[in-house]
Amino acid sequence: MRIHIQNPEGEALFAITPAQWQAALARHPDFAGTEVSFADDEAGRLAALPQADVLVTWTKLLARDFKPGTLPAAAPKLKVVFCTSAGVDRLMPFDWLPQDVALLNNSGTHAAKAGEFGLMALLMLANHIPTFAQDQVKQVWAPRFGPVLAGRTVCVVGLGSLGGAIAERASQFGMTVIGVRGKPAPHPACARVVGQDALDEVLPEAEFLVLACPLTPETRGLMDARRFALLPRGAKVFNIARGPVWEEDALCDALESGHLASAITDVASQEPLPAGHRLWTAPNLLITPHMSADDPMTYNDNSLDVLFRNLRAMRDGQPMPQRIDTRRGY
Amino acid sequence: MRIHIQNPEGEALFAITPAQWQAALARHPDFAGTEVSFADDEAGRLAALPQADVLVTWTKLLARDFKPGTLPAAAPKLKVVFCTSAGVDRLMPFDWLPQDVALLNNSGTHAAKAGEFGLMALLMLANHIPTFAQDQVKQVWAPRFGPVLAGRTVCVVGLGSLGGAIAERASQFGMTVIGVRGKPAPHPACARVVGQDALDEVLPEAEFLVLACPLTPETRGLMDARRFALLPRGAKVFNIARGPVWEEDALCDALESGHLASAITDVASQEPLPAGHRLWTAPNLLITPHMSADDPMTYNDNSLDVLFRNLRAMRDGQPMPQRIDTRRGY
Repeated sequence: MRIHIQNPEGEALFAITPAQWQAALARHPDFAGTEVSFADDEAGRLAALPQADVLVTWTKLLARDFKPGTLPAAAPKLKVVFCTSAGVDRLMPFDWLPQDVALLNNSGTHAAKAGEFGLMALLMLANHIPTFAQDQVKQVWAPRFGPVLAGRTVCVVGLGSLGGAIAERASQFGMTVIGVRGKPAPHPACARVVGQDALDEVLPEAEFLVLACPLTPETRGLMDARRFALLPRGAKVFNIARGPVWEEDALCDALESGHLASAITDVASQEPLPAGHRLWTAPNLLITPHMSADDPMTYNDNSLDVLFRNLRAMRDGQPMPQRIDTRRGY
Repeated sequence: MRIHIQNPEGEALFAITPAQWQAALARHPDFAGTEVSFADDEAGRLAALPQADVLVTWTKLLARDFKPGTLPAAAPKLKVVFCTSAGVDRLMPFDWLPQDVALLNNSGTHAAKAGEFGLMALLMLANHIPTFAQDQVKQVWAPRFGPVLAGRTVCVVGLGSLGGAIAERASQFGMTVIGVRGKPAPHPACARVVGQDALDEVLPEAEFLVLACPLTPETRGLMDARRFALLPRGAKVFNIARGPVWEEDALCDALESGHLASAITDVASQEPLPAGHRLWTAPNLLITPHMSADDPMTYNDNSLDVLFRNLRAMRDGQPMPQRIDTRRGY
């Protein structure tokens, strides 16, 4: 088997290195004979793809390099494309992907980091941190007190790798967790799980709301003005999904009216968020620049573990756990 | 036994109410016969103190109402003074307190809340939140990534109720915890505990530093320019103790030079911190207005539980666990 790793040009922090590859092989000795190539430019990519069985790369490179119909000629042997991010919304529609090529995402890799970040966001919202950050700019010392998390209710939309990890942390801290996902199968961290079609019924209970679902046609604009109004007054919201999952103007309206007490977002509909955008100055909103789920100290090691776990499943004739269902979009 | 509860005038959020008292008696039925009085003004206090065996009140009221030598005449039967805060530094020196009157603080009450807040602060520092809050003001989207807590090293100065709870949370999240306290007795959450006289030896290992000690003559100015310089470059610091435990100018210098990556403080040497103070604009510093350890939803219930636990010890001839050692100051 031959694997090609195409890193983005000029990427220092998250490029997969030969040393990381060797370390991963040592952890997965059953893949010791695997051949590998690395490139970060077009020449390297064009040279390597004709022989590659597996391509490891970034969604932004896939979106750029494979227009519909071009992949079979460029990479005739390709069986697996593994992209090192979890969200594959920028690859939709999947008309560029032949049906016999499996697309894997990297969902498991972000769980530990995202679980910690989600817990941090819940604690920050409970403790009014977005408000204090804005008070500090005005040099105003205005104490407000916050509760411990135990006993509070959080609604987590999306129970995949990110949402599931956040639900687990919230549950460990004594919160009542209501899960929302496509199909309402039970989840160990959730007191209750409902389908996305029942979202309106649970929003009035959500003191805290976490958006952690993939961006699909079904979740685009999920939180609009009507649904923000269904949240209880004083609700607190955290978005670790994608910017378009909420309507940003509706969010800003709900913060300005005081209906929402505060919010934290790690995502925006335009990234990088341009200066002058309304989000920058919304009251009681704290923005982090899409960094919540990526830990540079462990990211590539975890990604390669995910890759080998999937390749092992393929070798053994099992379904690959991170394979994207292109009809669902995740 | 007769207990007098003196609330601050005009205090809405944290005043102990008759309903909370009744609920506490129901949890502690062995004190069912206790008589109680409530007041929030001088007349009520003057009328109740001559009969009171126990006074429950705030440090700021004690500091105001009992000048040295006045307590025995005002409250001749008094055996116990319970103040509903943990820090008693504003009551020093204890020359106003007769030797046969026990002074109790409220240290246990803050543990759960402070443990969560301390964990939040560590996560916020790991995730560059003070920097992002300042980037937001400039409308700058500049991703930086942060590690999970597991494997990182934190030094916690003070292992009382607050520091102990934070050490436990940090340890649960896989951090290596080095404890520092007066006498270097082991602590279950700490890989290692050293005495305060060995602080200089452990500072170079402290990627994260948490100040959670009482303010005493020994801890005033503990973190000065020399000790900040002993921390590794890029260290991150959280102060949940008292403002004077660090030298605020030395802190600001270390942040401005970039030697410290970031800091969070819940305390200041002047509270409320006045507009124009240097702390407000220090780079990569986030300020919360002394609210970290107080949960209005559980505070008074927990406080009264602490009180009854101590009164039970007194009744049974045991040492009262929250009695202040006036020579040590905590």
